[in-house]
Amino acid sequence: MSGNTFGNLFAVTNFGESHGPAIGCVIDGCPPGMALTEADIQHDLDRRRPGTSRHVTQRNEPDAVEILSGVYEGKTTGTPIALLIRNADQRSKDYQNIAQSFRPGHADYTYWHKFGIRDPRGGGRSSARLTAPTVAAGAVAKKWLAEKYGLVFRGCMTQIGDIVIPFESWDHVPNNPFFAPVADVAALEDYMDSLRKAGDSCGAKIRVTATGMPVGLGEPLYDKLDADIAFAMMGLNAVKGVEIGAGFASVAQRGSLHGDSLSPQGFKSNNAGGVLGGISTGQDLEVAIAIKPTSSIITPRESIDTAGQSTEVVTKGRHDPCVGIRATPIVEALLALVVMEHALRQRAQNADVKQDVPPIRASFL
Amino acid sequence: MSGNTFGNLFAVTNFGESHGPAIGCVIDGCPPGMALTEADIQHDLDRRRPGTSRHVTQRNEPDAVEILSGVYEGKTTGTPIALLIRNADQRSKDYQNIAQSFRPGHADYTYWHKFGIRDPRGGGRSSARLTAPTVAAGAVAKKWLAEKYGLVFRGCMTQIGDIVIPFESWDHVPNNPFFAPVADVAALEDYMDSLRKAGDSCGAKIRVTATGMPVGLGEPLYDKLDADIAFAMMGLNAVKGVEIGAGFASVAQRGSLHGDSLSPQGFKSNNAGGVLGGISTGQDLEVAIAIKPTSSIITPRESIDTAGQSTEVVTKGRHDPCVGIRATPIVEALLALVVMEHALRQRAQNADVKQDVPPIRASFL
Amino acid sequence: MSGNTFGNLFAVTNFGESHGPAIGCVIDGCPPGMALTEADIQHDLDRRRPGTSRHVTQRNEPDAVEILSGVYEGKTTGTPIALLIRNADQRSKDYQNIAQSFRPGHADYTYWHKFGIRDPRGGGRSSARLTAPTVAAGAVAKKWLAEKYGLVFRGCMTQIGDIVIPFESWDHVPNNPFFAPVADVAALEDYMDSLRKAGDSCGAKIRVTATGMPVGLGEPLYDKLDADIAFAMMGLNAVKGVEIGAGFASVAQRGSLHGDSLSPQGFKSNNAGGVLGGISTGQDLEVAIAIKPTSSIITPRESIDTAGQSTEVVTKGRHDPCVGIRATPIVEALLALVVMEHALRQRAQNADVKQDVPPIRASFL
Amino acid sequence: MSGNTFGNLFAVTNFGESHGPAIGCVIDGCPPGMALTEADIQHDLDRRRPGTSRHVTQRNEPDAVEILSGVYEGKTTGTPIALLIRNADQRSKDYQNIAQSFRPGHADYTYWHKFGIRDPRGGGRSSARLTAPTVAAGAVAKKWLAEKYGLVFRGCMTQIGDIVIPFESWDHVPNNPFFAPVADVAALEDYMDSLRKAGDSCGAKIRVTATGMPVGLGEPLYDKLDADIAFAMMGLNAVKGVEIGAGFASVAQRGSLHGDSLSPQGFKSNNAGGVLGGISTGQDLEVAIAIKPTSSIITPRESIDTAGQSTEVVTKGRHDPCVGIRATPIVEALLALVVMEHALRQRAQNADVKQDVPPIRASFL
Repeated sequence: MSGNTFGNLFAVTNFGESHGPAIGCVIDGCPPGMALTEADIQHDLDRRRPGTSRHVTQRNEPDAVEILSGVYEGKTTGTPIALLIRNADQRSKDYQNIAQSFRPGHADYTYWHKFGIRDPRGGGRSSARLTAPTVAAGAVAKKWLAEKYGLVFRGCMTQIGDIVIPFESWDHVPNNPFFAPVADVAALEDYMDSLRKAGDSCGAKIRVTATGMPVGLGEPLYDKLDADIAFAMMGLNAVKGVEIGAGFASVAQRGSLHGDSLSPQGFKSNNAGGVLGGISTGQDLEVAIAIKPTSSIITPRESIDTAGQSTEVVTKGRHDPCVGIRATPIVEALLALVVMEHALRQRAQNADVKQDVPPIRASFL
Repeated sequence: MSGNTFGNLFAVTNFGESHGPAIGCVIDGCPPGMALTEADIQHDLDRRRPGTSRHVTQRNEPDAVEILSGVYEGKTTGTPIALLIRNADQRSKDYQNIAQSFRPGHADYTYWHKFGIRDPRGGGRSSARLTAPTVAAGAVAKKWLAEKYGLVFRGCMTQIGDIVIPFESWDHVPNNPFFAPVADVAALEDYMDSLRKAGDSCGAKIRVTATGMPVGLGEPLYDKLDADIAFAMMGLNAVKGVEIGAGFASVAQRGSLHGDSLSPQGFKSNNAGGVLGGISTGQDLEVAIAIKPTSSIITPRESIDTAGQSTEVVTKGRHDPCVGIRATPIVEALLALVVMEHALRQRAQNADVKQDVPPIRASFL
Repeated sequence: MSGNTFGNLFAVTNFGESHGPAIGCVIDGCPPGMALTEADIQHDLDRRRPGTSRHVTQRNEPDAVEILSGVYEGKTTGTPIALLIRNADQRSKDYQNIAQSFRPGHADYTYWHKFGIRDPRGGGRSSARLTAPTVAAGAVAKKWLAEKYGLVFRGCMTQIGDIVIPFESWDHVPNNPFFAPVADVAALEDYMDSLRKAGDSCGAKIRVTATGMPVGLGEPLYDKLDADIAFAMMGLNAVKGVEIGAGFASVAQRGSLHGDSLSPQGFKSNNAGGVLGGISTGQDLEVAIAIKPTSSIITPRESIDTAGQSTEVVTKGRHDPCVGIRATPIVEALLALVVMEHALRQRAQNADVKQDVPPIRASFL
Repeated sequence: MSGNTFGNLFAVTNFGESHGPAIGCVIDGCPPGMALTEADIQHDLDRRRPGTSRHVTQRNEPDAVEILSGVYEGKTTGTPIALLIRNADQRSKDYQNIAQSFRPGHADYTYWHKFGIRDPRGGGRSSARLTAPTVAAGAVAKKWLAEKYGLVFRGCMTQIGDIVIPFESWDHVPNNPFFAPVADVAALEDYMDSLRKAGDSCGAKIRVTATGMPVGLGEPLYDKLDADIAFAMMGLNAVKGVEIGAGFASVAQRGSLHGDSLSPQGFKSNNAGGVLGGISTGQDLEVAIAIKPTSSIITPRESIDTAGQSTEVVTKGRHDPCVGIRATPIVEALLALVVMEHALRQRAQNADVKQDVPPIRASFL
């Protein structure tokens, strides 16, 4: 419970710093007998990898993962799977100027007061680089859930800065650096180019879904499926808001509209976002998150130093002008980790439950 | 970890059903030596209590709490504090008609598939009545945090249905049944009266804050303070969205605006909502949540029964037309439970940390 | 994790003090759909109940259990089962003389230093009375394991003071107040009578077994089945030693003798005590524990008071001259709780594992 | 909670297999600001290392540890400390003959039934090699506890096979390969030489202590200090029994003897072994464990294969003829991990407790 482990039955313990020798994680609780190779994990790591377009940080990290344990003759053994990613392209001297001052919007100030010591190189432990092990663990969960339930996790960007991105098709998502569900991203590219020239940054809104959900995942009272989703998403660097289903729009809805009707063929809408009473309905999970603008910008900012005196901070180094651009594979991974945890938990306590009437799924989504 | 315990070091285990003999909780981990009586807890229970205005359910529950353990000669002993609330005003026959069908927007369908059995009386375990033990536990946390750090938790309603409620003053909040921070709630009353006549329901938006926060609470990587806040809030019945600080508005903000500047006198804004890198900054925690419209309405709804056949559901019984109206004391309690957990955790691992420069607080909030 | 919860998937949270208003527990994680009434639990509580022979404390407690939640129409619902036992026969004034001094062998001194406050009435939280909720929870686990796997838990006394008790038959155990597996307990009664006259107390050795174990329960590396058994047993009041299988005798055994051979018909011995590599073999679990002599004796003892000054302590009140006499139902319950936890855990992670060759069992035990 | 993490506030997650690429652990919860280098850890690893005398396995492993994270400029940062040990001297072909049969006394049979798959090379996950990461983590805990409280952990062998080893002095322990507290180990060497010639193995009894304990560590009801010690010790490979203080001898003791008297100068004996009511008394922790004889012997044993047919097993490879010989540094590490966990936990909940009268310590031990 010391803060760096995600989940209980499928427990992912994350370690490392941005400019330390390595980052990685240990996955404890993966069921045995599943085929697993480094390639299964590398695919999602590559989707998250920096340096793949001009719109993201130019740090060049291969993010090559090594499986250290838990796999024998190509199959998981039910014992811990340790994953190691060596850091390759640190430029720690970029951070000397901020070692004694606090960047606005960053964790510098809070780490310093909490721990009394902080590794300033690349943000140390608070760097978004630490999402790589999460993505790696998520890839393992995704594979198991796909094989077991046919579950599919998909995410896309729905807004960047003040540009709302319409949903055209999931097919477009892999074809542009924004994970945008549109064919033409020229407007997005122009927007990012102008932002970069201005030395500024912007936020983004990301949608993430799970299709093929079993009914019954989630534990009332407190450990609800949506509670754990909110925990996972808000725990991601830079996230400031989480919505399930209709989200904040539900405030102004009437009950006669919001409550999703049921028919023998399925639910007739999905304002619930796939969760009722904290338990999955079998409909798609529908989650949206707000990501704040990157705090590392070259625009000078007013701040203080570790002596409490006024100073001005300019953040150099290599940074994403919109951390939301690379967020999609990460939020897919986080959603997969939450579902995995609850899938195993459901087997523990309710493995004997059988209903005569099979679950219904939404027909229209 | 079986779903009904909130927290680890300050662990609240909740039990009971809406129409069972009793509800309650066991608090494990309250530090010893704090003065505690039933009156300390009853105050917040009374704020949440049903039947106190025409705008909420008319179920008449005294919600009288009994301390069963953990207190000796008026002081906490460091051992578990068991709190018991007997149910007094059940009308279980109101629910006979829905025992075999699933109310849209309710947990009926998911409980039935998850557990293979459900207590339909008053929603059973999924009833909002189970927030009473949470409020009781929160009152204990609030008291300790107030005595130890001077922490104050406050909440208010900021929107009901499509009526946005401006913030006038915290002083108004206790003076109206909506927990609205305005002097004149006539418009809100009219709105609720017309809604009730229409047999419909609406949602609400609630704001909750903590003032007097210590710096340094929250555990990166995963168990961030804001992650745990999101977990707590999204785990509350009917919540569909959670925001910290600028929330979804941060998507369209520029980094040069969003990142809160620091000066020797304090932070100059609070877009962060009091959390950076998952750790408290010392500024006020600022949280907002979206509550969906009540699902229990007398308007007939299309649904299915446990045989999978079409049916129509009309929900009688006594219900809140807007569950958000009574939500404020609950979200205060939840925020207090999260802060309490992290306050204890901080002592465990970082008790020796001392900085020469004292933490700064926001001067303007 | 705050010390008063046993288990994770089948989590039992215990509350109460010896002379407070009530004791009890909340069981979180019991699978749904099992028939359960108070009578199912009362049976084991009655086996542990004080006042049933002249050899145990004369405190008269009916220990009547009330189910407060988690059961609907006679079946478990998968939600928390709260169990309440009101204290009935407190004589708190017996303890006024020890409120300011520390009884040797008791938890008085350590509670006082740990918590800075202690409830001296009947030992408060450290009283063996708090094993009653454990027994109640164990009864629920036993019932589920019996129905699901045909598991049977049995315990007996194998030594009291310096009298070693031979094993004649399980059939004798319910027929005497010692839970001794012998037909004739006259020697034991004489021994206890003389001890009582001497104002002294003695220890006991208890054996507890589980028959009908599934193969595969237990989690390497740390959360081994035998590790959790040792945790459970050593956590019981007054226990000073735990053995699995051959126990301390294995030190002097040769490897060629100790390692239990396997044949197609089963294991040929059970030095392992039913656990290899932390995982159940399918053989009977065989556990032995040492219980120290009761610390509450009327013989005057040298001690100190809360001011650190020398004093003499005589413990009046009503006490068991050998706490081991009533220990058997408790250790059965503890073993059942450990097995229950691992049975659920096994379903979570290894539900898909199937071997062509069925497990073998020991044929001779 | 998936089995491979030890502790909560000081959580050690262990990974790796005997013949995989690497073993290691992640320590989450180490307080920040402590000086730490690889040399601090290597010392205890070297004490446990194989190949250092003719009485232990001849596998040659340098067990060189690499710190991957959590340390910055030579100090702990409060973030996870990942420790990596590459395996260097595997001879996996030694194990081909046992891949399809089950060695008596080994975890082969139980792993195969639990997981449906097992890594037979060197015992895979069930190998005693996996105690190396535990020793490494224990070295970190030892260092913190030594600096903070002056705590010292010491262990020694007290029996090997049927030879009881008298206690002469702690000073002798580092001077012989048995960790025996005697000056002359010729008899032990002769015993082991004859055993090795016979192709057999033997057990051992180990004592481990902690000196300088603070009063007040341990959580009643269930998570008692002695319960966690028993969990830790019984969870170690090959352990079949655990005693605290007087252990099994307390069965035949009278209460008037067993209960340790207190005087203003300290406790007058230590039958309690440093724990009363599950909480440390400030006296030395006194723990003894029984280790079974090594199961890997070259004497042919009767067994079955994975088809359930009779077979004979001869275990070749390089093995310790008495696994107890190298156990001492491991049990010291385990005891340190338990104390560390409870030391942090005590700070969380009882940091404000102060007693006017300082704790007493035993004067004579």
